[in-house]
Amino acid sequence: MKLYIGNKNYSSWSMRPWVLLKALDIPFEEVMLRFDFSEGSAFYRTLAAITPVAKVPVLVDDDGFAVWDTLAIAEYLADRHPELAVWPRDRLERARARSLCAEMHAGFGTLRSLCPMNIEAFFPEIGARLMAENAKLRTDLARIDAIFSSAVGPFLFGAFGAVDAYFAPVVMRITRFGLPLSPAAAAYVASVQQAPGVAAWVADALTEQDFVADDEPYRTQR
Amino acid sequence: MKLYIGNKNYSSWSMRPWVLLKALDIPFEEVMLRFDFSEGSAFYRTLAAITPVAKVPVLVDDDGFAVWDTLAIAEYLADRHPELAVWPRDRLERARARSLCAEMHAGFGTLRSLCPMNIEAFFPEIGARLMAENAKLRTDLARIDAIFSSAVGPFLFGAFGAVDAYFAPVVMRITRFGLPLSPAAAAYVASVQQAPGVAAWVADALTEQDFVADDEPYRTQR
Repeated sequence: MKLYIGNKNYSSWSMRPWVLLKALDIPFEEVMLRFDFSEGSAFYRTLAAITPVAKVPVLVDDDGFAVWDTLAIAEYLADRHPELAVWPRDRLERARARSLCAEMHAGFGTLRSLCPMNIEAFFPEIGARLMAENAKLRTDLARIDAIFSSAVGPFLFGAFGAVDAYFAPVVMRITRFGLPLSPAAAAYVASVQQAPGVAAWVADALTEQDFVADDEPYRTQR
Repeated sequence: MKLYIGNKNYSSWSMRPWVLLKALDIPFEEVMLRFDFSEGSAFYRTLAAITPVAKVPVLVDDDGFAVWDTLAIAEYLADRHPELAVWPRDRLERARARSLCAEMHAGFGTLRSLCPMNIEAFFPEIGARLMAENAKLRTDLARIDAIFSSAVGPFLFGAFGAVDAYFAPVVMRITRFGLPLSPAAAAYVASVQQAPGVAAWVADALTEQDFVADDEPYRTQR
């Protein structure tokens, strides 16, 4: 399998299937496409050749079949590897995990736009100001806190699965912007940061030394 | 099972699981909550009592278990009723259907914001103007056309399933705003409009005779 991803420092969507594949111990080849949102860039040309949507991540299986979008990739892995716990084994926990992923997939717009993932940067002053100024950010964070606090430990439903992969980039946003969490939510954040796949992704992100202006609302350079 | 929905005229997200349940012939009780986005409204109070997200749709199973978000509801139904074809039987078609649903779930922002679902209204002049003025709307529609044109017939993967339910509200937007489609895409649109669940939803929507100002960017009254 090949997983096409964007910059590890910035690409929150790419991070999700990558850390999930690592957690499940499924071998894959990583194809990193440097973000370049200009028309006709290598980024777009490479993706356009394999999917109709030209976005990362894309999983391309050994037979050449391409699956795009993080949720569809998670379900594809669950279908292909029924022996692995992509989702919780319990039917109701599985439904709950999917509700949480779907909520993340189309929601938390304020947190996502104001606090983009930027693993190598730390913006605690900006985070404090954003929290003071934006009621919707506080609402997003309160909901995240409730979700994280509901973890049975060490992860949301026990072992690391798709739902934890889904919230791993949120953990990055929260820690880099220094957003405040309750002790129970902070314990979950600590677990996610220590998960082997997450730690490996973060280590790779820190070596990139790249600067993509489109993903940097708060800096003009590193 | 109970399905909590918003106004049938406007609630594109509610339409999806409703028409899916009808297509699958799964009995359910409908609980319609009139849209009211003011703080402390009956709409919010009712939903807050059953889910943490206070959005429609919500599926509440006989044991009281609540599933929110359309994608999680589709997967829950697939889990609960493996004998029914919520998703295509073929593994790769299933993955493709899920990619398309996920693409819709978090994408097509321009089409969704400029052309909100409003089943009883017809805005062809506004649709023509929006198409002339908005390159992103044209991009969204071109992608929709490609998806619809790929239908094997009468629906995207043969029989009506979750992916067709997912695009049913898009069919409503396109026909009400008179957006232009290729003949192959138009044939799929005709099939969706004739699907029994879709026709029943539309008939109900036309009897509502309601006006929700928050969902009416182009009118001040009916």
